[in-house]
Amino acid sequence: MASRSPDPVPPGATPDLCNAPEDPVLAGFRRSIDNIDAALIHMLAERFRITQAVGEYKAAAALPPADPVREARQIERLRKLAVEADLDPEFSEKFIRFVIEEVIRHHQRAQQR
Amino acid sequence: MASRSPDPVPPGATPDLCNAPEDPVLAGFRRSIDNIDAALIHMLAERFRITQAVGEYKAAAALPPADPVREARQIERLRKLAVEADLDPEFSEKFIRFVIEEVIRHHQRAQQR
Repeated sequence: MASRSPDPVPPGATPDLCNAPEDPVLAGFRRSIDNIDAALIHMLAERFRITQAVGEYKAAAALPPADPVREARQIERLRKLAVEADLDPEFSEKFIRFVIEEVIRHHQRAQQR
Repeated sequence: MASRSPDPVPPGATPDLCNAPEDPVLAGFRRSIDNIDAALIHMLAERFRITQAVGEYKAAAALPPADPVREARQIERLRKLAVEADLDPEFSEKFIRFVIEEVIRHHQRAQQR
């Protein structure tokens, strides 16, 4: 893919999504999205570094992997932050549940070791 | 909930997750997690501001809401970034698919207007 140069597109032709030169407006938006995604991945990496330490601590202290009271508070807090930031609070809740489910899977694995 | 103060826990008692004073080690980890979550929510809010503009642009230009070639590139790039940051690349792929699915839903809604 990387070695293939885009085919020339005659004026007025229907753009081919695989080969057309990218729309410059779209390309600008996508550069911003790519920067944000790199930041998200690095924040998530740091979050999992911390939750890994939490998992080891919980396993050593024989604490349960999940904490429903803490989770309910996290969800409520992030819904409020989402509203303030003009992000759909339903999405913020789906997002944090998605992350917490992954963390609990990690904790369960840590306790099985 | 907020007005109820924690019950005192006798030494050696099994901690009650609802009322026990929080373990100070766990509390420190959780403060870091809460800071990271606030950053994640704000990065996601900014990402959706941009993808909303993308959606409006695509709707005006009659471009399709989804772009499988772009998505495959995003997934591959974020998997590499995840490996470098010591984050599970499978998780990074699940995460970006979760976000892209939400974006496509937004774009479809924008094109139905």
